[in-house]
Amino acid sequence: MTRVEVEYCVPCGMLNRAQDVSEAILKQFGEGVDEVALVTGDDGVFVVRADDEVVFDKTEDEYDVDAIVRAVKPHVGATA
Amino acid sequence: MTRVEVEYCVPCGMLNRAQDVSEAILKQFGEGVDEVALVTGDDGVFVVRADDEVVFDKTEDEYDVDAIVRAVKPHVGATA
Repeated sequence: MTRVEVEYCVPCGMLNRAQDVSEAILKQFGEGVDEVALVTGDDGVFVVRADDEVVFDKTEDEYDVDAIVRAVKPHVGATA
Repeated sequence: MTRVEVEYCVPCGMLNRAQDVSEAILKQFGEGVDEVALVTGDDGVFVVRADDEVVFDKTEDEYDVDAIVRAVKPHVGATA
């Protein structure tokens, strides 16, 4: 069971960015992940978690979709 | 807590359709939903659930993004 969460700031207009991350992860891993959840938030949040472990936080990391996909990879099941 | 699930068939190439539904729901309701999860599946599945209640199943309903959004609406919190 691999669950990825992309929590994004709704009022900041980060939906498109969250969708780009979601799409990249699902295209790369398919059924290797169980789900990618787009979680609504505010206050500037943009955090990606894989199985509850933070793999990207925009307050600490530079935004790079490929880097986020790579950071998710160790959490992906063997069925990918 | 409103959770919407979009379960889609990965090998059938339904990711784009699942993303269209996810985007329409999140654009409409924003923080009125807590999350929209894209759930990977196979065997032709395309089902949308709101708080575990099936609101769309492609084996029974005609695909219509606007109709799916309307079906989710009764499940949306008052913060929308």
